[in-house]
Amino acid sequence: MFSFIITRQETNCNARTGIIQTPHGTLRTPAFIPVATQATIKSISSEQMNEIGFDAVLCNTYHLYLRPGADTVEKLGGLHTFMNWNKPIFTDSGGFQVFSLNDTKVDDDKVTFKSHIDSSKHIFTPEKSMQIQRKLGADMIFAFDQCLDINADYETTKQSLARTHAWELRSLKEFQKLNADKKQALYGIVQGGRFPELREESAKFIASLPFDGVSIGSIFGDPKEESKTLVKHAMQFLPNNKPLHMLGIGSVDDLFTYVELGADTFDCVLPTRLARMGYIFIRPESGGNTTNKFRLKITNASYKEDSSSLDSNCTCSVCQNYSKAYIYHLFKAKELLFYSLMTFHNLHFFARLMEEIRQSTEEDRFLEMKKKWIN
Amino acid sequence: MFSFIITRQETNCNARTGIIQTPHGTLRTPAFIPVATQATIKSISSEQMNEIGFDAVLCNTYHLYLRPGADTVEKLGGLHTFMNWNKPIFTDSGGFQVFSLNDTKVDDDKVTFKSHIDSSKHIFTPEKSMQIQRKLGADMIFAFDQCLDINADYETTKQSLARTHAWELRSLKEFQKLNADKKQALYGIVQGGRFPELREESAKFIASLPFDGVSIGSIFGDPKEESKTLVKHAMQFLPNNKPLHMLGIGSVDDLFTYVELGADTFDCVLPTRLARMGYIFIRPESGGNTTNKFRLKITNASYKEDSSSLDSNCTCSVCQNYSKAYIYHLFKAKELLFYSLMTFHNLHFFARLMEEIRQSTEEDRFLEMKKKWIN
Repeated sequence: MFSFIITRQETNCNARTGIIQTPHGTLRTPAFIPVATQATIKSISSEQMNEIGFDAVLCNTYHLYLRPGADTVEKLGGLHTFMNWNKPIFTDSGGFQVFSLNDTKVDDDKVTFKSHIDSSKHIFTPEKSMQIQRKLGADMIFAFDQCLDINADYETTKQSLARTHAWELRSLKEFQKLNADKKQALYGIVQGGRFPELREESAKFIASLPFDGVSIGSIFGDPKEESKTLVKHAMQFLPNNKPLHMLGIGSVDDLFTYVELGADTFDCVLPTRLARMGYIFIRPESGGNTTNKFRLKITNASYKEDSSSLDSNCTCSVCQNYSKAYIYHLFKAKELLFYSLMTFHNLHFFARLMEEIRQSTEEDRFLEMKKKWIN
Repeated sequence: MFSFIITRQETNCNARTGIIQTPHGTLRTPAFIPVATQATIKSISSEQMNEIGFDAVLCNTYHLYLRPGADTVEKLGGLHTFMNWNKPIFTDSGGFQVFSLNDTKVDDDKVTFKSHIDSSKHIFTPEKSMQIQRKLGADMIFAFDQCLDINADYETTKQSLARTHAWELRSLKEFQKLNADKKQALYGIVQGGRFPELREESAKFIASLPFDGVSIGSIFGDPKEESKTLVKHAMQFLPNNKPLHMLGIGSVDDLFTYVELGADTFDCVLPTRLARMGYIFIRPESGGNTTNKFRLKITNASYKEDSSSLDSNCTCSVCQNYSKAYIYHLFKAKELLFYSLMTFHNLHFFARLMEEIRQSTEEDRFLEMKKKWIN
C-alpha cells in the first residue's frame, strides 16, 4: 500500500519532487509536516488544515500513549478517525520525548521513564513502540532509537549507536510481525552524533535493511555548516529510491539546505510554537530574510494601530481579513483567537513555501528560488 | 438608515418576526446576539461566525474603551473593519460592567471606576458613553443607565430609576448631536428593579422618547415567574413598532418565554462561556430538556471512549466531524482546539434554535414548537 515515486530530479542539484502513496492518500514531496502532538495542531481544526492545503501531519507517540492511550485511540478507529484527518499521518517512535525527560533510565533492552502528567512509571522497548504505533494507526511510523545529546563524545556516541542499531533491528522484526496487512510503512533512523564515520556506519546499516523510508535524527541545524556536512556525508550511503525524512528540521534556511541535498519530508514545531509566542513568518518580498529568520514579532507595541495585514504578500485568509492592529489587540487582551489566527498564518507560510519549492524543482529552477530567499 | 419592519405577527401569541435594517445589512428577528466582549467571539473567527449563520454580534464598550481604546478603534476604521465583521453590531453602554466592579462611585452626574486591567481611574458619563460608542461605530448602541442590584428595596430602586431616566435623556441628547448622519440607532433601557409600578413608570418614560429601539434591563431570568411578570407588565407600555431587546437574556426557556411575549433580540454570554466550561447544548430529540437545561457536560469521564458526536441531531460541522471522545481528549489534554470546537457547536445550537423559532412564528406554530421544547 506504501510507495514512493520520484516525479522529477532537478538537474542542477539533488532536489527532487515525489509522491508518497499511503492507504490514506498521497503526500507530495518535498513536504513540511506540521506536528499535531496530541492529535491536534494546537488551536487549528482539521478542516482548517485542509483549507491551508497540507497533505500530512505528524503525531507524537509518547503523548498519545499516555493520553488518551493507544488502546483508546485504537477502539475509536485509529488516529485518522479520532482526529478527523483522512490523509497521511506520521507518528514518531516516542524516543525523542522519552529521552528529553528527567529520570529516564536506559538499559540495553528497555527505557524506563516517568509520565510528565502524573509521574507514573512506564517502560518502552522497540517492540512496545511498534505495538503502540500500530494501535495508533499512522501510515508512516518510525523505528525506536536512542536520541543522544549531539555533543556526546565519540565513545558514548559509538556505544549509543550500537544500541540504536540493535533497537532498530528489533523494531523492524516486530513491525514485520504486526504489519502483515502492509497498512503501515516503517522508517529507519540514521544516528551517529557529530561523527561522520559513525553517521556513515549508521547510514550503511539502515540502508542494508528493508525499511520503507529512511530518516536522519539528532540534526538540530546548529551549527549550520557542521550539520550540513554530517547529513551530506550520511546521504551518500542511503538509498536514493526511498523517501528521506529529516526529523525535527524546519527553519526556512534548513528547508532549502536539505531539499537541495535531496531530502523529501520535514517535521518541526517551529511555525506553530512560534505562532503562539507571537512570531509571524514573512516572505522575502515583505522583508523576510536570513537575518530576521523570516519573522517579525507581532507583540511589539509599534503595531498597535497598524492597519496593514501580517504580510501584505501573503494570500492566507488571515492576511486577507485581519490587520496587525487586531492581532496585536487579541494578544494584549489574551484572546484565544490570537493563537488560531497566528497558527493559521504561519502554517500557510510553510505550505506555500513548500509548494513553491516543489514547483521550482519541477521547473529546474530550485537554486534560483533558493537564491531569492537565502543569501 | 435604521428601520424595523415586522414581517409576521403570530396569531396565537405575541411572537413576531421582523427585519432590522442597518447600514451594515439586515438582522432577522427574533435573534440571539452572541457577545464579542473584546471585539472577538472568544476562540471563533468572524468567518466561522458567518459559517454558523449569525447576523449580528454585541461588543462591550467598557472593555473596548480600556483596550485597545475607542480612539484606536476609530482610527482603524471602527469595529466592523477592526474585527472583520461586515454585518450589524451592537455595543452596550458600559454601564453593566462598570457597576459590576468594586470601588465604583456613583454621583448624579457621573460614575467613577477603576480599570480591571491596571487599576487606573476613569469616569463615565452618559455623554462619554455616547461618544465612545460613536467612535466604536456599532450600528445599534445603548443609553447609559444605572444597573442596580435587582434585590434593592423600593426607595433605593426609585431613586436609581430617577437617575437612570435623567441619564437616558442626556444620552439621547448627546446621541442626537453626534448622530447627524443617522449612522447609528439608539436603544432606551427600561429599569425599575423588582417593582411593577417602577417598571411601568420606566416603560412609559422610555416610550415617550424618540429612541430607535427599546430594551429591558436587569432581568436575569430568576426567579422565572417574577421576571416574566415584570417584563410582561412593562411591555404593555412600550411601543409595538420598535424593536425590543432583552439585555443579558439567553437561557433556552427564557428565549421561548420572551419571544412569546414579543421580544425581538437577546444577548447573552451563556453559550460561549458554558462552552469554555465544558457544557454542550443538546436538542430535545437528543435528550435536552428544561431539567438538564439542554446541556450535558463533556468533561465527564464516561465520554472517554464515546465515538458518537456531541449531539447526533445537530447539523454543525463539529458534530459531523468529531466525536465526544475526541472533544473529551482535547479537554483533558488542555488543547486550545477544545474551546473553538465547543464554542462553534454551542453557537450553532443557538443559531439554529432561533432560525426554527422564526420559521415556526412565520407559520403560526410558535406555541407548538415551544411545547416540543419546554414542558
